[in-house]
Amino acid sequence: MENLKRWLIGKPLKSAENDEQKLTKFAALALLSSDALSSIAYGTEQIVLVLVTLSAAAIWYSLPIAAVVIVLLVSLTLSYRQIIHAYPQGGGAYVVSSENLGKHAGLIAGGSLLVDYMLTVAVSVSSGAEAITSAIPALYGKQVIISIVIVLLITLLNLRGLRESATFLMVPVYTFIAIIVLLIATGLIKILTGTVPFQATETVGTVVPGITIALLLRAFSSGSSSLTGVEAISNAVPFFKKPRAKNAAGTLTIMATILGFFFVGITFINYWYGIVPKSEVTVLSQIGEAVFGHGVMYYVLQFATALILAVAANTGFSAFPVLAYNLSKDKYMPHMYQNRGDRLGYSNGILTLAAGSILLLIIFQGSTERLIPLYSIGVFIPFALSQTGMVIKWYKEGKGWLKHSLANIVGAFISYSIIVILFVYRLPDIWPFFIIMPILLFIFYKIHDHYIKVAEQLRLEDEVKLHTYEGNTVIVLIGNVTKANIGALNYARSIGDNVIAMHVSLDEDEQKEKEIASEFKVKFPDVRLSILHSAYRSIETPIIRYVDMVSKEALKRNFTTTVIVPQFVPRRRWQNILHNQTNLRLNFRLSWREHIIVSTYSYHLKK
Amino acid sequence: MENLKRWLIGKPLKSAENDEQKLTKFAALALLSSDALSSIAYGTEQIVLVLVTLSAAAIWYSLPIAAVVIVLLVSLTLSYRQIIHAYPQGGGAYVVSSENLGKHAGLIAGGSLLVDYMLTVAVSVSSGAEAITSAIPALYGKQVIISIVIVLLITLLNLRGLRESATFLMVPVYTFIAIIVLLIATGLIKILTGTVPFQATETVGTVVPGITIALLLRAFSSGSSSLTGVEAISNAVPFFKKPRAKNAAGTLTIMATILGFFFVGITFINYWYGIVPKSEVTVLSQIGEAVFGHGVMYYVLQFATALILAVAANTGFSAFPVLAYNLSKDKYMPHMYQNRGDRLGYSNGILTLAAGSILLLIIFQGSTERLIPLYSIGVFIPFALSQTGMVIKWYKEGKGWLKHSLANIVGAFISYSIIVILFVYRLPDIWPFFIIMPILLFIFYKIHDHYIKVAEQLRLEDEVKLHTYEGNTVIVLIGNVTKANIGALNYARSIGDNVIAMHVSLDEDEQKEKEIASEFKVKFPDVRLSILHSAYRSIETPIIRYVDMVSKEALKRNFTTTVIVPQFVPRRRWQNILHNQTNLRLNFRLSWREHIIVSTYSYHLKK
Repeated sequence: MENLKRWLIGKPLKSAENDEQKLTKFAALALLSSDALSSIAYGTEQIVLVLVTLSAAAIWYSLPIAAVVIVLLVSLTLSYRQIIHAYPQGGGAYVVSSENLGKHAGLIAGGSLLVDYMLTVAVSVSSGAEAITSAIPALYGKQVIISIVIVLLITLLNLRGLRESATFLMVPVYTFIAIIVLLIATGLIKILTGTVPFQATETVGTVVPGITIALLLRAFSSGSSSLTGVEAISNAVPFFKKPRAKNAAGTLTIMATILGFFFVGITFINYWYGIVPKSEVTVLSQIGEAVFGHGVMYYVLQFATALILAVAANTGFSAFPVLAYNLSKDKYMPHMYQNRGDRLGYSNGILTLAAGSILLLIIFQGSTERLIPLYSIGVFIPFALSQTGMVIKWYKEGKGWLKHSLANIVGAFISYSIIVILFVYRLPDIWPFFIIMPILLFIFYKIHDHYIKVAEQLRLEDEVKLHTYEGNTVIVLIGNVTKANIGALNYARSIGDNVIAMHVSLDEDEQKEKEIASEFKVKFPDVRLSILHSAYRSIETPIIRYVDMVSKEALKRNFTTTVIVPQFVPRRRWQNILHNQTNLRLNFRLSWREHIIVSTYSYHLKK
Repeated sequence: MENLKRWLIGKPLKSAENDEQKLTKFAALALLSSDALSSIAYGTEQIVLVLVTLSAAAIWYSLPIAAVVIVLLVSLTLSYRQIIHAYPQGGGAYVVSSENLGKHAGLIAGGSLLVDYMLTVAVSVSSGAEAITSAIPALYGKQVIISIVIVLLITLLNLRGLRESATFLMVPVYTFIAIIVLLIATGLIKILTGTVPFQATETVGTVVPGITIALLLRAFSSGSSSLTGVEAISNAVPFFKKPRAKNAAGTLTIMATILGFFFVGITFINYWYGIVPKSEVTVLSQIGEAVFGHGVMYYVLQFATALILAVAANTGFSAFPVLAYNLSKDKYMPHMYQNRGDRLGYSNGILTLAAGSILLLIIFQGSTERLIPLYSIGVFIPFALSQTGMVIKWYKEGKGWLKHSLANIVGAFISYSIIVILFVYRLPDIWPFFIIMPILLFIFYKIHDHYIKVAEQLRLEDEVKLHTYEGNTVIVLIGNVTKANIGALNYARSIGDNVIAMHVSLDEDEQKEKEIASEFKVKFPDVRLSILHSAYRSIETPIIRYVDMVSKEALKRNFTTTVIVPQFVPRRRWQNILHNQTNLRLNFRLSWREHIIVSTYSYHLKK
């Protein structure tokens, strides 16, 4: 087990090695941008798909819509740059909302993002799996299994640690960036040199009959799904090399610039080349064919798209554990999310995310269409809250607040609009969000409540007085009369003033019981033996009843009560299955009793 | 949890209630014969299917083949009746082979049967599921899920206890018996009254060109698969009401008579009516249509067949746990197979069988054709071994042995022949058997070896001398300086002569460490505090290193060493997830150390 773990995730790292594991901007871009960048594989398509429900002539509206998306992108980027500088310890929307809008808003933002990262992983991994199965038709129908395997691989990569996953992810991310740059450049050159004539159905500005504000809003809200993933860097500031905030903000700007350029470029080429969505082929793939022809470059594009979709899941794996860490530090999630694993990652967060996304993959059977609207609502709520939070922050800090918060105001306004649009037009898809969130909030508060109460109970008074007991009653559980008991009885006599051996008789067979009693008397003449009867073949129930009785007496005399449960420790671990695990069960059940201490005496088998 | 368990399997029964749970012959027939009886749903078909590969004219050979099958049935029945009387404690082939042919042969028989019962469950449940999906086409493609649900239901029934499952199973078993009696009677009457003319392709005795011994042998070996399940009663003798052996032998005779009558009747009607197997419709279903017409009775037949196939799995559930119990009593399987559950069934055997058969269903995706040959080899090996064992037994017992063992000799001869036929003609299907068996034998011997060694090590010498220690060193693990430590320190001082508080510092933060040290000094001035450092964020490793050091010193002074690990016991069980389970892990890792006793001090949270 241990060896397998070492082979899979590598040797443990010292806490002091933490700084060596930090990321350069170049590596961070690979690790944290795949989610945002991969969304351009479907962003333009989402807009055009809504528009063509009216007619192909309406496609030109994708250009002004793209412009609004870019405005939103710019405002989000400026806003998150501010957040990075203001909150360099990471935590993004959760921290910003908590500090400026109150705990409740913070938890809504945090909870949304937790769910959202699971959705990110599920959505991107299953898009990746679809790309793989369209390339290798023999695998068709196995998408869910492939998706789960990819999730497991990414989990492993993340358990191995940050730096190693970044190295591994650079290839797909930078290949994708390179091929898209080439695609847009070639496409534009062909337009400028006149190689490709103007093929759009309608020129910009023509009023298409039947166009409605509602349609445009729906197209916009669909297109804005390209912006999911922009917040990831703000959650992951602690992963950067120093100066952390500066490097993180720089990386965010680079990412946003690339994303904006790609989005506008692809939308424009799509319009100019007059490409209409088809159900079998994606828009990006049609553009690729139109620009590169059906050659090698086209296949490189397809392959790079598949890969970046598959690895986009990694963004969730970087951001989720940090967010869980922050929630845990504030006592809203179990403490275990603060533990760092052997390779310095927050392993429990990584494993929880993996389990959650695998569950989503199984429930939704990898159907991405049903997950995307849910995913959008889950990301725009934290967007809106964090930007509102920033506005409040600037306002509180006083002078020049309007200047500082201009980007935030615009961003907040657009984000709220998208939430309203989603609520009005996509309620049938997003209702689960409004069920999950209250449950999550309830859990957060329950956990918080518990931790607060524990802290209160544990607080020491100023005067601490240790108590002195008169003596100790020790009860030793005895199976048959064998060598294993000698050590436990020796130990019991060393700590106890009053030693009782206790045997539970399961058999109705009185003969065997008498044999044990008389054998015990011969071998251990000075130890008292109590034999308990069990009518229901459970050995725990009669033991607990007896121990309760003894401990009541002991307390009266100001004695402690110790129950010693001997256990066999075999030479090899598999042999444990050959022995009763009574000690574990007894330990568990007796732990609910007060004033009783359970000791495990290990008898080591040598052969 | 507890309530759910009660609702599902019922209130616990006292050990003394065991006798009330025993079976009458009528109930036992329902419980133990479904496997054997259900096989007539496919027995004749298996023979005819092989014969028609030559020509429809060859079908008449099914009559002499059926005659040989009947000879085998009679010899097996006589033989198992002898076994029941000779070994009334149950265990069948395993016990007979062990006692007369040696442990090795016994384990081969036992191991084959264990695997075979899993196969029985998988095969019969998936045939049942196929019958259900052909009745309700909407469920087509969900056979594996349906099969698993049926296995779970039968498991539950068996966990509830013997008598209740017998009651439940009487309906399908007796309905099936009634409808088949009616089918054969109606079929014969129609033949005798001349309503149905002789429609066979060829009369008995005609030599069909191209017929070979090999073909006849293959047809015979296929047909003999109808006899699987005959041994079940001999494994389950302890379940019968007293006189056990007599009732069991009687039940076996009744079952064999019914089985023989059904097999011959169906084979004869099939021949007379000239029915040729079709791929879509089973032979039994064709016979039903020919005899009853396409009316209500036909559907009753189909439904009863489906039901008995589904419940045939229950035979495995009755026999497997008893066999596992016998193997476990002889120390070849883990002790836990001897524990009786709340309802007096051997729950661990029941659960193992369920898990194994569900695994088989998933691996083979419910494809029965691939399982049946494997299943035949697994049942004829124990048949052959147990009959050989009986021959040896009679021989050893001396006079008149040949008379006693005549049936056994015939049975053994036919069983060995079938094994040879299977080996020659079906090796591509049965090879997994020859891989699984050596592995299983290896496991049996490994387990046995372990238990024997344990018993040797535990045996007490005649002179037992208890040792007296000079004192006790007690180490208390301390987290932060809180109230939780007071109780543990009090207890430690009561049992120890030398109390050390131990704290593990995970943070590189020296400040916090100093704070804890000074706070501890103020609050508990007379207790020594050791602070350990952990470079790898594991708290167990430094603790173990420190404890090793302390215990070495203690041993030199003839002191015991106790490690006290305080644990939080929250008011509600779910809250356990909010606290570190350090005590469990530490308990486990320290258990590998000798001379160290681990105590759990429970601090009960009140709020």
